[in-house]
Amino acid sequence: MEASPRSSVAQAPAPAFAAALVGALGRAGVREACVSPGSRSTPLVLALEAEPRMAIRVHLDERSAGFFALGLARASRRPVALVCTSGTAAANYLPAVVEASLTRIPLVVLTADRPPEARDWGAPQTIDQLHLFGRHVRWFAEAPVPGGRPDLERLARALGARAAAVAAGSPPGPVHLNLPMREPLVPSGRLSPEPEALRPVMREWRGTLRPAPEAVAWLAERVARHPRGLIACGPMDEPDAAGPIAALARAAGWPILADPASQLRCGPHVDHHTLGHGDLLLGDAGFAERHPPDLILRLGAPPTSKAFHGWLERAEPSHVVHVDPHGGFRDPAHGASDLVRSDIVSLCDAVRRRLGPPRTPSAWLDAFVAGERAVAETVADVVDADPSLLAPAAVRTLGDALPEARILYVSNSMAIRDVDAFLPATRSRCRILANRGANGIDGMVSSALGASASGTPTVLLTGDLALLHDSSGLLAASIERLPLTIVVLNDDGGGIFSHLPVARLGDPAGFTRLFRTPHGRDLGRLCQGVGLAHVRAESREHLAAALKDSFSRSTPSLVEVVVEAEHNLEQHRRVRRAVTRALSSVGL
Amino acid sequence: MEASPRSSVAQAPAPAFAAALVGALGRAGVREACVSPGSRSTPLVLALEAEPRMAIRVHLDERSAGFFALGLARASRRPVALVCTSGTAAANYLPAVVEASLTRIPLVVLTADRPPEARDWGAPQTIDQLHLFGRHVRWFAEAPVPGGRPDLERLARALGARAAAVAAGSPPGPVHLNLPMREPLVPSGRLSPEPEALRPVMREWRGTLRPAPEAVAWLAERVARHPRGLIACGPMDEPDAAGPIAALARAAGWPILADPASQLRCGPHVDHHTLGHGDLLLGDAGFAERHPPDLILRLGAPPTSKAFHGWLERAEPSHVVHVDPHGGFRDPAHGASDLVRSDIVSLCDAVRRRLGPPRTPSAWLDAFVAGERAVAETVADVVDADPSLLAPAAVRTLGDALPEARILYVSNSMAIRDVDAFLPATRSRCRILANRGANGIDGMVSSALGASASGTPTVLLTGDLALLHDSSGLLAASIERLPLTIVVLNDDGGGIFSHLPVARLGDPAGFTRLFRTPHGRDLGRLCQGVGLAHVRAESREHLAAALKDSFSRSTPSLVEVVVEAEHNLEQHRRVRRAVTRALSSVGL
Repeated sequence: MEASPRSSVAQAPAPAFAAALVGALGRAGVREACVSPGSRSTPLVLALEAEPRMAIRVHLDERSAGFFALGLARASRRPVALVCTSGTAAANYLPAVVEASLTRIPLVVLTADRPPEARDWGAPQTIDQLHLFGRHVRWFAEAPVPGGRPDLERLARALGARAAAVAAGSPPGPVHLNLPMREPLVPSGRLSPEPEALRPVMREWRGTLRPAPEAVAWLAERVARHPRGLIACGPMDEPDAAGPIAALARAAGWPILADPASQLRCGPHVDHHTLGHGDLLLGDAGFAERHPPDLILRLGAPPTSKAFHGWLERAEPSHVVHVDPHGGFRDPAHGASDLVRSDIVSLCDAVRRRLGPPRTPSAWLDAFVAGERAVAETVADVVDADPSLLAPAAVRTLGDALPEARILYVSNSMAIRDVDAFLPATRSRCRILANRGANGIDGMVSSALGASASGTPTVLLTGDLALLHDSSGLLAASIERLPLTIVVLNDDGGGIFSHLPVARLGDPAGFTRLFRTPHGRDLGRLCQGVGLAHVRAESREHLAAALKDSFSRSTPSLVEVVVEAEHNLEQHRRVRRAVTRALSSVGL
Repeated sequence: MEASPRSSVAQAPAPAFAAALVGALGRAGVREACVSPGSRSTPLVLALEAEPRMAIRVHLDERSAGFFALGLARASRRPVALVCTSGTAAANYLPAVVEASLTRIPLVVLTADRPPEARDWGAPQTIDQLHLFGRHVRWFAEAPVPGGRPDLERLARALGARAAAVAAGSPPGPVHLNLPMREPLVPSGRLSPEPEALRPVMREWRGTLRPAPEAVAWLAERVARHPRGLIACGPMDEPDAAGPIAALARAAGWPILADPASQLRCGPHVDHHTLGHGDLLLGDAGFAERHPPDLILRLGAPPTSKAFHGWLERAEPSHVVHVDPHGGFRDPAHGASDLVRSDIVSLCDAVRRRLGPPRTPSAWLDAFVAGERAVAETVADVVDADPSLLAPAAVRTLGDALPEARILYVSNSMAIRDVDAFLPATRSRCRILANRGANGIDGMVSSALGASASGTPTVLLTGDLALLHDSSGLLAASIERLPLTIVVLNDDGGGIFSHLPVARLGDPAGFTRLFRTPHGRDLGRLCQGVGLAHVRAESREHLAAALKDSFSRSTPSLVEVVVEAEHNLEQHRRVRRAVTRALSSVGL
């Protein structure tokens, strides 16, 4: 057994290695670890427990733990550690790791492993964990087995610091350290945290990527020359970027397409440049055709709106400029003309400074402003004319009821599309988050629960299938007691399929059983089963009151809105028809 | 759009390709597909629906679907297809794929994918699915995008046939076909199944691996020369192998260590050679030391019993012979002396034929027979002396109550260990299955549900953590309405940790919160929540009655046994102490 030269008691190798690694993670800014029960990971878990900087969350199901860590890292903008034992435990992280990779969320995955002599010889709870997450992590490293060489703790510290740095790097994302360990797994005597002054760990000083001056000059010149431009903000979560982006839009006289998860839809920067209803506006074939853009400035991930992408593909503007400090190529339509590698705020500020006073008057901007107003009024009219509580009304009621400084986590499939279409832009502050990397319906409850663990009360808006897909997350929510409101638009199955061509085949093709997949579960009973407060909102007023009540709690609760699927589909169609009429009546 | 020359209507390329692929799977013997809702997979799902040989099961959660398919393939001994859409859906299969690989279960994983032009350009629901399961599949292939070349259906048929053949091959395991598809995803007109006579698909004729004659001669000679031998049967599920193995044991005068999942513990072949309590017997240090083996014949995966492995490692017999037709190296102790590549039945028959009449008398065999009897009586005495319903009594009651021709699926962690220690060998027929590849606690309910879908009513014995880890499986069980009895030994957390060194650290190190992880969930309420029948058995008689009632149902129900953790731990220790006393009192 190797003694650590600096600790007071001779420590077993695995616990000493784990303590050094975990200490370095703490010093590198990791503050939260999500662990799942297991034996091989004992040294890591005990080291986390002894590390004063670290808060530990325990989740039984590693898949749920993975999404919890994803939501927490997303909300806190800090790397979160994930710790599990050897075997299929680690395999359960894959869905969250894939999402973290595509959506650029820093995770430090620490998988305990059996030592090499156990691997591929049929030993229990031993799988091939090397490169388990393939190309879906930014970095993989297999640590040596602790012991056998003096002072391997130097490496352990460097591994911890490097893992945190790469996870928070450019682009941020998941990293995977595989940690083989031999017994003894428990420390000899009480494990004390590594003293701060012990030795410096590698600290990374990240810079700000300033735009190339030529790019700024070129772009400013183009903006000045092209009144028919638009800033398309896709899902992103850059702190303090909304103001500079809005200022650039004002200077350019351009509208902003504000994706729900762009942080541009809500906040004090919002003015008439902001399109909250861009999806419905560009979804009108007439408006889209009569307003082809010359220049698109794309910030963040690709916007959720299919209408936006269709508009772009049909118009084929000569300039589609992507700004991405992390060197990505997020261009599904293969239409980008220019990639500006720059911090978003720096670029917006620099271009704005080179532009003159705001472009007024601008017929182009006026058309979008009038269009946005016409759509907003139409939506309000159509939705208000029908007293039923369907998805559009539920989204609007939620938007009205949402207190400031709260996170709204939006699930994929119909939920994010409904928010895109029906949540008006507002000057009220709200942070809207979504898993728009792989757009899966998995792990939604766990993600939102993780976000609420960041200290900001969180509201999840989800459909019933995503809710049931993550029933483990529901169970975790009932155990974790965090301030989370789960709003479920329950149409008993996948309503999205009714919008797809397969719906036209009708039921002989098994449409209902194979695609819509109604489950017939009673969510009230399900909530009772896991011990979660539940209320079924029957009207808008009832929903508003239920939300208010839920927001006042410090524990999770679920607000269910039963949505009649056919009626809901019909209202979506009615809104689009009414939008077309309204736009044509104002000559747009 | 390419027309298939032989179909009456011109068919869109993706549906035509999917129909050819699925038709070949059907002709290659795949009879069940488990699909999860999604859009990109539409051609596959509609082709499955049109294929008359194929039954479709729908499961929302791909992780649960993966384990369901695993359990169904295990029970039916036939490859099962898994079908999902693009994105993280596929990533959710990884845990079941890893288990299937290590435990040699044939799965054909069909993941729909976006076409190459969408990949790595930020397109929605698009992840890198190439080699998604890494080295955990036997074969991976990426199909071309349907269309673009006439008669790609030839390839589709060959891919389907080959996938089924490799999955059922040597060793059996999971295969992964990644299937990129462009729109239209729905067929033009009604999809009709491919006529049987259309063209032959590649059919694989698998042989039986006969042992090398030299190996048979050598082994028979060694068996004859070594009275101190043992046949160790680990987890395996060879049809009709129990009889030949038992006959060899009789001829050799050797005991059989019968792992719970070896198919040797229960059945008409059982006689005094069969050790049902081998784990307790070899767990006695005195007996183990006084009975070192000369020759071990190991069949199947490594046995569950830690005591067996410890006995072997201490004795270091000169011959440890592994028999494996699939060329594996399942030797965690690195002690194998000979690897016989042969079908198990063929080898046992051939060696037996070369041996003379049964070796009698044999002091060696007599010691094991007397030991087994002493342990069995001791277990009965200790357990019967305590009226509490703890794990040992529950296992014995379940063993007594189990009707013939039923599958007992045993979960990992304590459940399989308790069955190993406490389920007596019996001449009654029972098929005991377990996920002893990676030994994870994930997917247990789904696995057992899948087994019950094979047409054989199934009983799952599990702890509470494994149950809650697979809450998605519980939900699936409540929807699927299959004959499944879930017996839960509920000690509110991970009882196994109390057996490990970390328990001795006590609660200052967070033992309860970080390792035992009590959850405090009320399983009765949980069952009510998902709509599953539940009964809490308070005594052995009550448990027997509850099991009988559950066995008479055609739908799932859960029987809960609340196990007092400390008392349970103490009884486990008391049994081991009593076994030591009993063995020493009979001079063993």
